[in-house]
Amino acid sequence: MSTQNPMQEIPEQESLQLLTQKDVGRLVFRVGDDIEIFPINYHADGRELTFRSAPGTKLAGSIIAGRAIFEVDDIGEDEVWSVIVRGSVRLLDTAAEISAAEELELQPLVPTVKRFFVRLDVDEVSGRRFHRGPEPEPDVEPTD
Amino acid sequence: MSTQNPMQEIPEQESLQLLTQKDVGRLVFRVGDDIEIFPINYHADGRELTFRSAPGTKLAGSIIAGRAIFEVDDIGEDEVWSVIVRGSVRLLDTAAEISAAEELELQPLVPTVKRFFVRLDVDEVSGRRFHRGPEPEPDVEPTD
Repeated sequence: MSTQNPMQEIPEQESLQLLTQKDVGRLVFRVGDDIEIFPINYHADGRELTFRSAPGTKLAGSIIAGRAIFEVDDIGEDEVWSVIVRGSVRLLDTAAEISAAEELELQPLVPTVKRFFVRLDVDEVSGRRFHRGPEPEPDVEPTD
Repeated sequence: MSTQNPMQEIPEQESLQLLTQKDVGRLVFRVGDDIEIFPINYHADGRELTFRSAPGTKLAGSIIAGRAIFEVDDIGEDEVWSVIVRGSVRLLDTAAEISAAEELELQPLVPTVKRFFVRLDVDEVSGRRFHRGPEPEPDVEPTD
């Protein structure tokens, strides 16, 4: 491996830490043969991601889907990082969980009355960092 | 509809125009029962999105999948917009198309030798703008 490799895997703990630096990511899940994706405000704590939503929204679809993917990234001029996590989705339904979720700093993108909390329990973490740079000449073979 | 509605649909032409303001979005597609999502550099011209990739990458999966979703957004403190397009994916294989694609300002995130161009022909466009704001008190019913 070259130290100049333009793409680097980000270790799991660092990937989870990066999730705490942002507050909007993209939730992706299947509904039958279709795929839904939408940006959503979230709170990250280790492998627990928490979302807030109103009834009757697309987020409800993620609960039906059971599993979801969540992507968070930072797109800089010189560097891009992207963390993708996968896990199972469930509605928070115990008083203790809901009470704890109420304390989180969640600011939904659509600020209507939202009484439901959704939890993504992460079981797969993948992080990558890209150093954007000029492309090698087509005649030059990659060295690694 | 209220003029203070925190979420607004963005008209199709404006949505397509917004795509030209960014150069990295997220490509999403199915591979069997799984969903792949990854950030990718792109060029947008109306309903034609162009990507560049090396052989053997995930992007090859999108061609096999045949259809893909592409999401581009801007996350500001007060406002978030997100444009989601859907369409069919194909490898550019005519000399004329490849020659035209060579002229595009594409800067792949992984700057190795990349000889393939992939085209997403958009047939569905959805744009939304969210005005981030404080949440109403739970006792207040939405007025619209």
